[in-house]
Amino acid sequence: MIHLQSYVCGRWEAGTGEPVPLHDPATEAVLGDVRPAGIDFAAVLAHAREHGGPALRALDFPQRAALLKQLASVVHEHRDELIEIAGRNGGNTRGDAKFDLDGASGTLAYYAKLGSELRGNQLADGESSQLGRTPRFSGQHILTPRPGVAVHINAFNFPAWGMGEKMACALLAGMPVIEKAGQASALLAFRIAELVVESGILPAGAFQFLPGSVSGLLDLLGPMDTVAFTGSAATGAKIRSNPNLIRRSVRVNVEADSINSAVLGPDVEEGSDTLEQFLGNVVVDMTQKAGQKCTAVRRIFVPAALVDTVCEELVARLESTAIGNPLDKETRMGPVASRAQFDDVRQGIERLAAVAEIVTGGSQPAAERGWFVRPTLLRAREPDAAVLHELEVFGPCATVIAYDGGAANAADAVAALVNRGDGSLVASVYSDDRSFLEATVRAIAPWHGRVWIGSEKTMGQALGPGAVLPASVHGGPGRAGGGEELGGLRGLMPYLQRTALQGDRTVLSRVIGVDDQA
Amino acid sequence: MIHLQSYVCGRWEAGTGEPVPLHDPATEAVLGDVRPAGIDFAAVLAHAREHGGPALRALDFPQRAALLKQLASVVHEHRDELIEIAGRNGGNTRGDAKFDLDGASGTLAYYAKLGSELRGNQLADGESSQLGRTPRFSGQHILTPRPGVAVHINAFNFPAWGMGEKMACALLAGMPVIEKAGQASALLAFRIAELVVESGILPAGAFQFLPGSVSGLLDLLGPMDTVAFTGSAATGAKIRSNPNLIRRSVRVNVEADSINSAVLGPDVEEGSDTLEQFLGNVVVDMTQKAGQKCTAVRRIFVPAALVDTVCEELVARLESTAIGNPLDKETRMGPVASRAQFDDVRQGIERLAAVAEIVTGGSQPAAERGWFVRPTLLRAREPDAAVLHELEVFGPCATVIAYDGGAANAADAVAALVNRGDGSLVASVYSDDRSFLEATVRAIAPWHGRVWIGSEKTMGQALGPGAVLPASVHGGPGRAGGGEELGGLRGLMPYLQRTALQGDRTVLSRVIGVDDQA
Repeated sequence: MIHLQSYVCGRWEAGTGEPVPLHDPATEAVLGDVRPAGIDFAAVLAHAREHGGPALRALDFPQRAALLKQLASVVHEHRDELIEIAGRNGGNTRGDAKFDLDGASGTLAYYAKLGSELRGNQLADGESSQLGRTPRFSGQHILTPRPGVAVHINAFNFPAWGMGEKMACALLAGMPVIEKAGQASALLAFRIAELVVESGILPAGAFQFLPGSVSGLLDLLGPMDTVAFTGSAATGAKIRSNPNLIRRSVRVNVEADSINSAVLGPDVEEGSDTLEQFLGNVVVDMTQKAGQKCTAVRRIFVPAALVDTVCEELVARLESTAIGNPLDKETRMGPVASRAQFDDVRQGIERLAAVAEIVTGGSQPAAERGWFVRPTLLRAREPDAAVLHELEVFGPCATVIAYDGGAANAADAVAALVNRGDGSLVASVYSDDRSFLEATVRAIAPWHGRVWIGSEKTMGQALGPGAVLPASVHGGPGRAGGGEELGGLRGLMPYLQRTALQGDRTVLSRVIGVDDQA
Repeated sequence: MIHLQSYVCGRWEAGTGEPVPLHDPATEAVLGDVRPAGIDFAAVLAHAREHGGPALRALDFPQRAALLKQLASVVHEHRDELIEIAGRNGGNTRGDAKFDLDGASGTLAYYAKLGSELRGNQLADGESSQLGRTPRFSGQHILTPRPGVAVHINAFNFPAWGMGEKMACALLAGMPVIEKAGQASALLAFRIAELVVESGILPAGAFQFLPGSVSGLLDLLGPMDTVAFTGSAATGAKIRSNPNLIRRSVRVNVEADSINSAVLGPDVEEGSDTLEQFLGNVVVDMTQKAGQKCTAVRRIFVPAALVDTVCEELVARLESTAIGNPLDKETRMGPVASRAQFDDVRQGIERLAAVAEIVTGGSQPAAERGWFVRPTLLRAREPDAAVLHELEVFGPCATVIAYDGGAANAADAVAALVNRGDGSLVASVYSDDRSFLEATVRAIAPWHGRVWIGSEKTMGQALGPGAVLPASVHGGPGRAGGGEELGGLRGLMPYLQRTALQGDRTVLSRVIGVDDQA
């Protein structure tokens, strides 16, 4: 029985209030608890502003990158211990836990490498331009660390990666972080926080950790602060509506719901490598992390002529997935992370079942104890039903939706259905027909943060669309929250301020040192 | 007596509701009116979405750039007529009107040139990167036009430039615009709208114009739409709080209040070119457009030893400024734009006078008729008084604030005062001491969208800090709204969606045509 603590103002604090229990979702056993209240947020912010920020900004990009490299090593060195914690508190199989943990250390290492190639403590943004009558008067945009605090409100599904990728970008940019853990899996986040603190890698005030509530914290933020949130659209909207954040133009980055799509092209034939990638990626998305990935596919668009084949293939693979306690080696899919998720997923399946036929799985519990749901594939009766395009069932559940692959406008028709997601994180398109690919990708691109293209040559070359890679942006418009994270240097943008400098060319280059960096 | 109309759905509409009068602020005469209500916003949006957007996106960047070039010519060709309108409805001197109108045609022409150098209908964003086990699987970010509508809510102070610069970016990006005019100066915006419509340059649905209220319009926007607002922080916050905009992650760009600063360095000597630029720019900012520029200086930081000299010099120049009807050729400063502005400015001067001494000017009307205020310079008793750093008096008014130029930490001390503006559009720093410049610019950069550096070599080289140039971003953090406009291609970003494409390298380059553009 572990009592989680907050790490604030340079010490661990137990907090106050009624303890909230943390569970093993496979057994429903209580593993620990966290007291949600009693943290002096004004002091937390002051500690970050007065100590963490100045200490980080006294370093340059390569020096901060070196800290990230050490943090990556800390996570990697404790991988086995952390995998075991993720198996108990998060419902993660060994594979799920590795995906989360290696994602964290990998992203930290990626930004460590990227930062090592930068210089100084500001970045030139673009090239200089002549602004006056002669080249003497010149303009140059620079990016400098914002002298504020980065508040990260993390989701329960990726306690390691979610915290790691947000920290990597903020710390490299020079901003101290306050990491709020998602509650259902807070044990893993807490252990990582302990390791970060014990390592002594980061300067005082650069890292603070809150496993409990952050209610009231947002009311204290100012113009140089940044909030990055991953979670439900409802909570995202609540954060964005905060009057203080609005009044003071506090930056807010939101990753929220996303009804992601996979599109099988009309040209794809049975037995082809392209079909095999499609099937494999769909099954990974549906079962990895028990479908609790913000990037997991929810809508599977298949040419009508192939729907039977695709359903049969998917059913065979889904039904052979070994479900059970993630600590058992044979287990390929564990439970969902919490009682609340369990209830939500089951209700969601029932709502989908009103407009779709259940092909395998269903809303019934998959075990007598523990929050287990079977991988559930549905087949839509009508492609138009609103619930298909609006409801994110955050579990091992997706719906096959048929489209007319023989129609002359097949690409436009399927793109229109895909775009009914109202803005998504990712869509994948599988085809070797270049005109279909071009038309589909062009039509869906503005509605998506990322488009993954599968073709015969990508077989075995890369992770599927469910994986978020640090070199590509992660985020999406509309329902997906309108945010952007990662994408190389783009990931630092929420934490840097762009400023246009205008002045004598020599003064800009010699005094401000901008040209030296361009 | 002109009755302003809306241009919507391909026709002019008179609107309904009690007519709101438009005045000549120099004489208080009623020049026309506008009926605020009665516009079917759902139809307006549908017209843009179904006609304007597809027509613009059927063109490529260079073709849309060619439209901007034609629009620039239309404004330029009618310059004399428009100057006269601005002199009657806006209170603009001939110089003020040229600044607005040439800003509009110049920014349209700038984006016409910039767009002519692009290709196709999507932009590569950065370089491609290897994402898989071999270089075969690759990632590339692209920027594509958002298939939505750009709603521009313009301020009264720059009816031509404000509409022109927003239109330039949105139309070049491929988004149809709905332009809402600021009421006090709507006559000029209306006449420009007439010229745009009469010219037939833009495809149907690409341009719509609303001189009345847009209440209710924001409730109908969706994830692919963009709102760009320039005006008060209070209205900006109201727009940002709109539940529909929040729920659907509609992009919102805000330019709001800004307590801009000018800093005179401790090294600057009497009689120097650097001092002369400082004095000249401050006087231009205070009197041009009767101080109604979002970029105009409000706080003038001067080393204590030079405060008397600076005040004397400024008073001499301000008191010799000929105030009067802007249609008179001798007039160098007209009235403020409306009765509401007049009242606000007078109250604001009184609020400042509680903590500062009035050196010249004051809150009394400068004429028996018309909304005239005298150029008003104040001298702060204490540099710390909150009102100095929080109140934007949007008229010909600024306050001199002394700092200890002899202190060892002079740069840090003055930067801390400057940053109390809580985020501003622009600050200017005048010095030939490189260490002072470097320290000050570094400390204030993250709190500002733009920093203008005056030194002996910039004399006569460029427009002062009050001028917004299309090559440099315009916007600022915090109180200034947190937005960004212009800045070359950066100005198109609110209207483009960034998407990470991932797939086989050959497919990406041949099918999507990305590499061809990089």
